[in-house]
Amino acid sequence: MEIESATQHKGACGWLKALPSRFKAKVISAAKSIKKLAQDDPRRIIHSLKVGLALTLVSLLYYVRPLYDGFGVSGMWAVLTVVVVFEFTVGQTLSRGLNRSFATFSACALGIGAKHLASLSGEKGEPIILGILVFLLAAASTFTRFFPKIKARYDYGILIFILTFSMISVSGSRVEDLLEMSYQRLSTILIGGAICIIVSIFVCPNWAGQDLHKLVASNIHKLATYLEEFGGEYFQNRSENEEESCGGGDVSKNDKSFLQGYKSVLNSKNTEESLANFARWEPAHGRFRLRHPWKQYLKIGALARQCAYKIESLNVYIGTSDTKVSPEFHGTIQDVCMKMSSESGRALKELASAIKTMSDDPFSSANAYVETSKTAANELKVALESASLNNVDIRAILPSATVASTLIEIVSCVEKISEAVHELSNLAHFKKIREANVLPESSKQPHNLLHRGSVNPVLDGDSNHVVITIDHETTDHSPENDQNPKGPNPAGLRPQV
Amino acid sequence: MEIESATQHKGACGWLKALPSRFKAKVISAAKSIKKLAQDDPRRIIHSLKVGLALTLVSLLYYVRPLYDGFGVSGMWAVLTVVVVFEFTVGQTLSRGLNRSFATFSACALGIGAKHLASLSGEKGEPIILGILVFLLAAASTFTRFFPKIKARYDYGILIFILTFSMISVSGSRVEDLLEMSYQRLSTILIGGAICIIVSIFVCPNWAGQDLHKLVASNIHKLATYLEEFGGEYFQNRSENEEESCGGGDVSKNDKSFLQGYKSVLNSKNTEESLANFARWEPAHGRFRLRHPWKQYLKIGALARQCAYKIESLNVYIGTSDTKVSPEFHGTIQDVCMKMSSESGRALKELASAIKTMSDDPFSSANAYVETSKTAANELKVALESASLNNVDIRAILPSATVASTLIEIVSCVEKISEAVHELSNLAHFKKIREANVLPESSKQPHNLLHRGSVNPVLDGDSNHVVITIDHETTDHSPENDQNPKGPNPAGLRPQV
Repeated sequence: MEIESATQHKGACGWLKALPSRFKAKVISAAKSIKKLAQDDPRRIIHSLKVGLALTLVSLLYYVRPLYDGFGVSGMWAVLTVVVVFEFTVGQTLSRGLNRSFATFSACALGIGAKHLASLSGEKGEPIILGILVFLLAAASTFTRFFPKIKARYDYGILIFILTFSMISVSGSRVEDLLEMSYQRLSTILIGGAICIIVSIFVCPNWAGQDLHKLVASNIHKLATYLEEFGGEYFQNRSENEEESCGGGDVSKNDKSFLQGYKSVLNSKNTEESLANFARWEPAHGRFRLRHPWKQYLKIGALARQCAYKIESLNVYIGTSDTKVSPEFHGTIQDVCMKMSSESGRALKELASAIKTMSDDPFSSANAYVETSKTAANELKVALESASLNNVDIRAILPSATVASTLIEIVSCVEKISEAVHELSNLAHFKKIREANVLPESSKQPHNLLHRGSVNPVLDGDSNHVVITIDHETTDHSPENDQNPKGPNPAGLRPQV
Repeated sequence: MEIESATQHKGACGWLKALPSRFKAKVISAAKSIKKLAQDDPRRIIHSLKVGLALTLVSLLYYVRPLYDGFGVSGMWAVLTVVVVFEFTVGQTLSRGLNRSFATFSACALGIGAKHLASLSGEKGEPIILGILVFLLAAASTFTRFFPKIKARYDYGILIFILTFSMISVSGSRVEDLLEMSYQRLSTILIGGAICIIVSIFVCPNWAGQDLHKLVASNIHKLATYLEEFGGEYFQNRSENEEESCGGGDVSKNDKSFLQGYKSVLNSKNTEESLANFARWEPAHGRFRLRHPWKQYLKIGALARQCAYKIESLNVYIGTSDTKVSPEFHGTIQDVCMKMSSESGRALKELASAIKTMSDDPFSSANAYVETSKTAANELKVALESASLNNVDIRAILPSATVASTLIEIVSCVEKISEAVHELSNLAHFKKIREANVLPESSKQPHNLLHRGSVNPVLDGDSNHVVITIDHETTDHSPENDQNPKGPNPAGLRPQV
């Protein structure tokens, strides 16, 4: 008994003594994760400071007496507006601010009308009629939120509409007081919204459109990196493995992290769609005009995803050195497959660079790479036709044959991506090539050519454009969670108040 | 001139005359889309009515005088809470309600503390100190919202924390008034939250957990449908095409809509993750216990997505009848490939049914189908090895060879899905097989067997379980937008106040 209690005492003492060091370890680990979060995207810190700034600005409404006397308790709506409207990107902040303002305005008008209508039916009838109106309007508005198009753009507005209408119509005040209340609510919301929008746009803005632009370029770059490396990884490592058969495995495993970058492309659909949604709200900024073709980015993104699905099936064949492979057949297709893979990778890298710099310059080399990869695909077809493999063991050629046929598909997919990027270049008026010595591939289409001819040359000399840089942090992120290389919450999937 | 104005007049008249019919057409098309939205998921109508009901209930706070006198203007917080907390699923409503309550409580406490601290520094120092505190707290809290784990669970809570803290600390009131104000705000929010949670749980509840369960089962079912039909579509239509070469093309094109169902599986990751997140907040309901293994659904979902990627590369080969195909080779692999495809389809169908009914019963046949498909895959390997195709044109066997090799991968993927579903069965205590005449595959693993033996038999006789039905609306939805077969917004990706 005594021994037990002594042990317990000792244990408790030990625990207490270990407490400071444990606490220290926890603090250090927390500090490390904060540091990593901030280093991954320094805009996160800036955004946090901007929220603090906007809130401090709106607090002036309370502290500066004349303003405070003017708005009274309603001033808190300005605080509330700043907290719920301020979002990471300008587009999302604008979307929320405008939705909130218009919804409040229309709900106030409708609410006062409903109140007036109900007051006509006497003191006893009024609550009943108002109750029915609130029920009907809330149910109908909630239902409209299920329409995908309305949901994408006006979901927040409808929510605020229901909220304001219910608050106005159930409040016990008379119609005259309501007018005053609505005026105060609307004006404080406008002030709060304006502070958000001004801080969001003028203090280190994060543009959703620019994020989408970077994301699409970086996704194509990730596919390019994979394709450039795939040939060497599959064909050369295989022959090395066959020669050495053991050792060096660790090195190749470590190397493979750069082959995982494409995985984040597989699940990028939602992020891209919501960024495009917010980008539509944004004013012209840098080289992005008001009606920048955001939809075209979604088209390119969808094609990039198609390509990523094919890469996913290629990826199965990396590192499966245990299956028998016919060296004869392997030798036949190795060179041409490596060429297809690396040339389409290079083409994609040029296309990514064209998007990144918003310039037609890289198109000439991209077109050349696309052509070479197509030629290689045709060479492969010829090589396959003429290869007379007698008494062939089909099982031994199966993996390489599948790789070859997937690469042929990837080449045609890259061609489609190239066409889509050319289309984007026309729609978004990319900078023209100065030495137009190589005809771009899409010049086969007369429509595109005509369209290109109509570009306003003033835009070309526009020195006001932003240099867009893409951070290729392919290896820094876990591929499953990293759909969004920079912006922590551009998707706006953030639930509010 | 006269003729022109007469034409204009006629045009205006025609436009005016056409107005009623145009208006009618618009109304009819709107009514049709409303009807479709409601028919796709009748729970949308019920949810809208529930929101109306909850709002009408909370209006009682205003109309019943004793309550109104008690809470005063703060009563509007109850209305606000109902509008912003009430969500489509119980889990989301609970998550928002609890986040809002706890955040308000802690922010009120901290805000009053801050106010007291600031008041010590005199009338001039108070606003400065409060401003600094608001700035620091808002910036720090906003930054914590970037941590993925915190974001997934407590994002809304942090937002409300910033909101309440700012409102409390910048309001011009004295500490005594603040206590009263905090009490009122907290109690009205609790009343509003309680109304939401009660209506959400007791009036036709939509459980996020059940939605996730159905979604995963339905996704596997979609893959199964594809695989069951693929063999016939690829091999038989091809031979028919070769025989007939024309006509009947339209029929096969019309038929293919059911082959598109799998596409929604490709992009289901986000929906599954947010449903799993909300499901964790839900109390036990039906056969789902409090600690139901929701994570295992994510694992099954990820495997199903892997399988969908492979199906995506299979799908390229359907309808490409223009490439040359070696009939000899085709004949060699046709039967065994069709067997692999249909048997793995059947296995998936049984696994979907096992999840759907939460019962071990379908496992025996699922295991049998998995075994048959594995045998078929081995047969294919043998057939490929022994097939001595002299002077073979590799290009002609390439498509079929790729299909065969992709099917081999799909068989192994289906085996993994089967293992994951067996694991789910153990973790979630599925109903046991009554006539245990077939040993399930996973009985090879002694751990699983032990675990299964420990199931509380009371659960088996539980008559209180919910019969879960899966709606296979594969053909009703456009495959790109239909990630979520029933719930219109289980993902909680809904921006609020």
